Amino acid sequence: MAGLFITFEGGDGSGKSTQSRLLTDWLTGVGHTVLHAREPGGTELGLELREIILHRRGYIAPRAEALLYAADRAHNIATTVRPAIERGEIVIQDRYLDSSVAYQGAGRVLDGTEIRDISLWAAEGLLPDLTVLLDLPPEAGRERITATGSTTYDRLEEEKNEFHQRVRDSFLALAAAEPERFIVIDATLPIETIAASIQTRVERLLA
Amino acid sequence: MAGLFITFEGGDGSGKSTQSRLLTDWLTGVGHTVLHAREPGGTELGLELREIILHRRGYIAPRAEALLYAADRAHNIATTVRPAIERGEIVIQDRYLDSSVAYQGAGRVLDGTEIRDISLWAAEGLLPDLTVLLDLPPEAGRERITATGSTTYDRLEEEKNEFHQRVRDSFLALAAAEPERFIVIDATLPIETIAASIQTRVERLLA
Repeated sequence: MAGLFITFEGGDGSGKSTQSRLLTDWLTGVGHTVLHAREPGGTELGLELREIILHRRGYIAPRAEALLYAADRAHNIATTVRPAIERGEIVIQDRYLDSSVAYQGAGRVLDGTEIRDISLWAAEGLLPDLTVLLDLPPEAGRERITATGSTTYDRLEEEKNEFHQRVRDSFLALAAAEPERFIVIDATLPIETIAASIQTRVERLLA
Repeated sequence: MAGLFITFEGGDGSGKSTQSRLLTDWLTGVGHTVLHAREPGGTELGLELREIILHRRGYIAPRAEALLYAADRAHNIATTVRPAIERGEIVIQDRYLDSSVAYQGAGRVLDGTEIRDISLWAAEGLLPDLTVLLDLPPEAGRERITATGSTTYDRLEEEKNEFHQRVRDSFLALAAAEPERFIVIDATLPIETIAASIQTRVERLLA
């Protein structure tokens, strides 16, 4: 049996962690071996890069930022994700190449196609079998982050609303361009409703 | 007056630092403003990346390594090199994109054209006006490094001779493909002879 690669995408506060964990628990419960991964920072090397990307003081040139994400991705896919898929496991990952296109492409105003090409080079062409896009207006995501009581924003969270609106629009455009790979879910719906939609779609994938 | 961008390339121990410093001193002496740069590690962010690339324990996926060099390059060019060239200065840099093609391409057996394309994307297409290739058999370079009394090799220095032979061959092929950009110098010649050859070539460039 070949493995599966399922990614979760969406803005900050859209519920990616919650939903990817619920899906992991459900799949594990019905007997699948699941690896829960994330980018950036899914590996030991990645944690060092994540620290630089998200928390380093001072300016980072936009292309350098994009290439650091790609380096994290190359290492994560080569050492963690691809081996698990080859063992027949289901890999569920928070954020993947669509985040790069949305944040470094649309957000930082680099060329989205070039960002995607670099990501695919990094990952030796690996595309997800399914991508769950949790769609949320940026203001709603911001309110949720504030409500968690977290007092500091990271380098991307602190960008202005206009930036996050471009990111959201880019995610929706990516989903529209690949309807067979994406499922788009309204992230303002109740947690259980969202989890059920995702399960239905994944059951179809497993069948 | 527009600035100039001159890069030094070659294996470890080929004399890049010595010759780039002699050229810097000579140009400064005749009245030019010179910025001496290097990759990896020419910026504060770059120093953190250089530490990861060259001294981190443990495996780094080859594509991740290549992308970390590209990230260092993107930041160095955007924040240091390009502004200096635009101010009309002469930038002299130890290692640039030819090193990436030679080490990550030929050395790590990735596609050299892809490595070059990623470097050019990182640097927004910036090519040197002149590249000085200091050519040396890998064994001779190894002997020189040992003679300095340095007791530890970094991650690339400790690679086998066969790796460094592929790197040398790749440098020579790159120079052959762009004879107008490269000057190839036998690095076993006396330091003063090499410095004089480089000065003659740079005088022509300045004329």
